[in-house]
Amino acid sequence: MQWGYVPFLYFVAVLGLEAAMQKECRIIKALQNKLTYQQRLQYMKHYFPINYTVNVQFEEVLRASNITRLRDENVSELSLRCLWLSVNSQVLLKIWAVLLEKHPSWEYIQDLCLLFEQLAEEYEDCNQGKVDTNVWDVVEQVLTSDAGSSQKAVYPKVLLDNCVKVMRMLYSESCE
Amino acid sequence: MQWGYVPFLYFVAVLGLEAAMQKECRIIKALQNKLTYQQRLQYMKHYFPINYTVNVQFEEVLRASNITRLRDENVSELSLRCLWLSVNSQVLLKIWAVLLEKHPSWEYIQDLCLLFEQLAEEYEDCNQGKVDTNVWDVVEQVLTSDAGSSQKAVYPKVLLDNCVKVMRMLYSESCE
Repeated sequence: MQWGYVPFLYFVAVLGLEAAMQKECRIIKALQNKLTYQQRLQYMKHYFPINYTVNVQFEEVLRASNITRLRDENVSELSLRCLWLSVNSQVLLKIWAVLLEKHPSWEYIQDLCLLFEQLAEEYEDCNQGKVDTNVWDVVEQVLTSDAGSSQKAVYPKVLLDNCVKVMRMLYSESCE
Repeated sequence: MQWGYVPFLYFVAVLGLEAAMQKECRIIKALQNKLTYQQRLQYMKHYFPINYTVNVQFEEVLRASNITRLRDENVSELSLRCLWLSVNSQVLLKIWAVLLEKHPSWEYIQDLCLLFEQLAEEYEDCNQGKVDTNVWDVVEQVLTSDAGSSQKAVYPKVLLDNCVKVMRMLYSESCE
């Protein structure tokens, strides 16, 4: 390879990375628009019976405080995003599973699931080799719905509130 | 009193009874229109999470078979109507209590509650003196939400299905 190509290839690589980031941020922006407080309140609280809870794995309750702790432990940002992505993909499927197609929140959750699927396509790096070991264990546990994991009954709105808060922590800087 | 008045008074009494019956039947007709299969399916099944149940007293599960049995025991039709009225008034309030005002089934249950209230105004005879003793005990137990009564978790649609089936048994002949 001639040395003259190096800046060109670097330029192409940067462009590629930039394009991937733009796509990721477009999906995050779409998620933000779907996950406004007003919509979470309407679809996840008003449209459910009072005090209704969904059973999720203990690890699927991913709060902002968990992210702060993991950052203090120097867990990589990629690992944190992979964790958030896999946890919330599962959480959405669990909420979706309690709804019939004609429930007024069914389409809302379907739209969110589709956006998470699109986002997952952008995260080919979410694999055992690239994700920090302790986070990968949790990701695997969540994805395999480990029967040994303890269950927790959580309000659907609280699950999506957690999703939004962590999303802001992970993407507000890179997707402004 | 002159004997000539008797047929006149009888005529007035019959007219009054007829008017009361017409009002009662108008409310029953309105209930029928609100309690079609399609509406019960939509508001009580599609708009609730899958397998969602409401806790009611054992006595509040009033099925067609209960009415058949009570008729076999020569319980009066007035007693049966009083029983159906008080059971379903309570059942509706219990379903209503699990819904927030912005839930898409809230107004539907509110409308039904109002029709039951109107119907209750027509049943001044639903009191201890007029209702058969064994039925009155149940009515009282339901109205006082007797803490000693065993509870049952029932699908909301099943509760309204029971309501409709018994309504047909009690009113189809007199309100045709």
